[in-house]
Amino acid sequence: MRGELAFILSPRIQFAPFVRERIVLALTVMKFGGSSVGDAERMKRVANRIVERAREGHQCVVVVSAMGDTTDDLIDLSRELCEGIPSQREMDMLLTTGEQVSCSLLAMAIQSRGCKAVSYTGWQAGIYTEPVHGKARITGIQPWRVLESLKQGNIVIVAGFQGMTQESEITTLGRGGSDTTAVALAAAIIADDCEIYTDVDGIYSTDPRIVPVARKLKEISYDEMLELANLGAAVLHPRAVECAKRYNVNLVVRSSFTYNEGTQVKEEAVMEQGVAVRGIAYDKNVARISILGVTEKPGQLAIVFGALADQQIDVDIIVQSGVIDGKADFSFTVALNDVERALDVIKKIRHDVEFRDVTSETGLVKVSIVGAGMVSNPGVAATMFRVISGLGISINMVSTSEIKMSCIIESSRLAEVVKALHTAYGLDAGEQVFVGGPADRR
Amino acid sequence: MRGELAFILSPRIQFAPFVRERIVLALTVMKFGGSSVGDAERMKRVANRIVERAREGHQCVVVVSAMGDTTDDLIDLSRELCEGIPSQREMDMLLTTGEQVSCSLLAMAIQSRGCKAVSYTGWQAGIYTEPVHGKARITGIQPWRVLESLKQGNIVIVAGFQGMTQESEITTLGRGGSDTTAVALAAAIIADDCEIYTDVDGIYSTDPRIVPVARKLKEISYDEMLELANLGAAVLHPRAVECAKRYNVNLVVRSSFTYNEGTQVKEEAVMEQGVAVRGIAYDKNVARISILGVTEKPGQLAIVFGALADQQIDVDIIVQSGVIDGKADFSFTVALNDVERALDVIKKIRHDVEFRDVTSETGLVKVSIVGAGMVSNPGVAATMFRVISGLGISINMVSTSEIKMSCIIESSRLAEVVKALHTAYGLDAGEQVFVGGPADRR
Repeated sequence: MRGELAFILSPRIQFAPFVRERIVLALTVMKFGGSSVGDAERMKRVANRIVERAREGHQCVVVVSAMGDTTDDLIDLSRELCEGIPSQREMDMLLTTGEQVSCSLLAMAIQSRGCKAVSYTGWQAGIYTEPVHGKARITGIQPWRVLESLKQGNIVIVAGFQGMTQESEITTLGRGGSDTTAVALAAAIIADDCEIYTDVDGIYSTDPRIVPVARKLKEISYDEMLELANLGAAVLHPRAVECAKRYNVNLVVRSSFTYNEGTQVKEEAVMEQGVAVRGIAYDKNVARISILGVTEKPGQLAIVFGALADQQIDVDIIVQSGVIDGKADFSFTVALNDVERALDVIKKIRHDVEFRDVTSETGLVKVSIVGAGMVSNPGVAATMFRVISGLGISINMVSTSEIKMSCIIESSRLAEVVKALHTAYGLDAGEQVFVGGPADRR
Repeated sequence: MRGELAFILSPRIQFAPFVRERIVLALTVMKFGGSSVGDAERMKRVANRIVERAREGHQCVVVVSAMGDTTDDLIDLSRELCEGIPSQREMDMLLTTGEQVSCSLLAMAIQSRGCKAVSYTGWQAGIYTEPVHGKARITGIQPWRVLESLKQGNIVIVAGFQGMTQESEITTLGRGGSDTTAVALAAAIIADDCEIYTDVDGIYSTDPRIVPVARKLKEISYDEMLELANLGAAVLHPRAVECAKRYNVNLVVRSSFTYNEGTQVKEEAVMEQGVAVRGIAYDKNVARISILGVTEKPGQLAIVFGALADQQIDVDIIVQSGVIDGKADFSFTVALNDVERALDVIKKIRHDVEFRDVTSETGLVKVSIVGAGMVSNPGVAATMFRVISGLGISINMVSTSEIKMSCIIESSRLAEVVKALHTAYGLDAGEQVFVGGPADRR
């Protein structure tokens, strides 16, 4: 299935027991992404923000990504030097310098504001990962050094996105890696909060570019956030949310440019009376593949989806039509850039699976409603169907889970549908708190 | 005394015993400086050169500096972010990324030429240093990982200029650090050669910008090279030469841009019959300070030079005049940028040392003749005096050692003196092999 639903922390993970030794207001992990530290001016603003937090009485551990375009510039350099695909191990050696630069610069900026600060690379901070390059998962954290530095009164800056294997190889965590570093560190040092500073000021009930009356949510549950993260909301990476859920880390998403209150992500989020849906998300990165006239035999589906999985192609929604004359039609969705490879795979298994034809369809979008209250509100699904068909739009595919429901529709009608659903589920009005889609670059 | 005459490796240094397991033509350490890998094109040329060496049957360990201006760019960034002097620890975190970038890129470039390669940071390569930032000395090397990678058929690329303390703090080695990394690694893995690739094609009998008939030397001894390195020849750092001498590493200085034979630096260099002087060096970074009318009492000199040493001011040549009426004059030389501080120090100790006046003089230069054969050729000193006074130039100060003799003269006459000495010691003619000054940027 598409999305990373496996836990990011392997069963081997061992967080060290830790007794806080000083009375402080709070132990806070703050994470700043690449655009928050995009240039020297922004870096200084971030330093001011951290120093304010420390002077309020917080012990601060700061996780920072590479500055703005650093990573892209390094990738360009590697392309100049290397014909073909460079070794992922050497790319990790190369790219991890980006965070090492930003974390040492941030430490200097904080020091020149009169606070004690010290920076650590991923390996120095004790972040251990699987022996995989380019997209390793954290397997455990040994936070002794971070804790010792905190005890000595330092603000501790840790390079995000990176770790080390048991064999002292430098690794990167892949997409969303710095979020995961922050959450896993917060779990390991039993932080009171993990604040994710980003370029939006919280999680919205839907994409404000489509629905101007979308509202910022005060709270959202881990499960709801996970569905939204997997559904294409760009603010928080699913891995980080999974880790927060597993170790019950209190996450806050807020803006690095304003002092507005952000959105809390926690175990149980307060739901307004009578409101079942917290937010509406959409995902344009979706295409449908149909296998037509498949001869009905046991094991046919297993061959198809086994072959796709072998090629690392994630399949999302799967629908099978009824059987007519011993033949059935199957449809499923994949990411847009997997369409050609998926068609190739299916054509190659023709000797194992009998079918008449295989087709693909793009120009689609997946619209999803998400809310922990859906399970106890049986009318929620009916409302979604009524709203979409009321606009004269046909629903191509449907999938449901305990806390979400997704429909595939043609992409040209996306804005209408999201607006109508936002209104129908009572998300436009009042002072309720809701959840939302990608509110990026506002 | 000026110059770093202490051994770079502390008594704690422990090189691991190592049994070579494969028969290869040679095990070679190659070091490329920042200008040799200044841009992508130069980096590719370096990669070609290494691959050629490997295909000839060499096992290669490559030490590389940061690309061209990387270090300066990083320093500029730190200045933007940090008022005042940044913490040296954080500077080390920042600057060591430069070598990490160049060594991973070089590994990729070599891989795309069809050879196996792997890059290591200083700490990954097992380079341990003192717990000092900005100018740490190597205390030991644990080369297991480098050796294991060689055994697996890799070209091993190691980031120069950096190491790690026992407490896992990242350190830099200070000026000439990459040379030292290369030599110390060569000692630790018992390499057959340590080739220093630079922008000149060897060591010259003197600076070819001043004496066009200066010649490249085939050989030079460690001691001679040390005198020249300390006297301002920019090609090899004294620390690296000291380490090579101590562990008897066969050094070769050669050009990264040509295939000309370089200069070998080794224990015993062949000396031409009847030629006592191998080369002529000069150092413009010299100023004279004179303390006049010092009352003759025991311990006065100890107070003066003790106070200077406390302020980390290196003193080179010291001369005392005869005592007249219980008063003496002292003169000594310091580096140009230490003059003001030295004058301050002396004025402050006026209550401990009685003297009439203190003065400073610039516009001077130190000219030195170097050669292991000097000790057995008593006429060498007389020739130097005769040549200089023959030009009508007065000698301000003189100092001698077993293998060198230095005179302080006015700097406007430098070129004449070096040319005349080069001729007088027979360095212009024939096919003899000699040693020389800074032949940089030729």
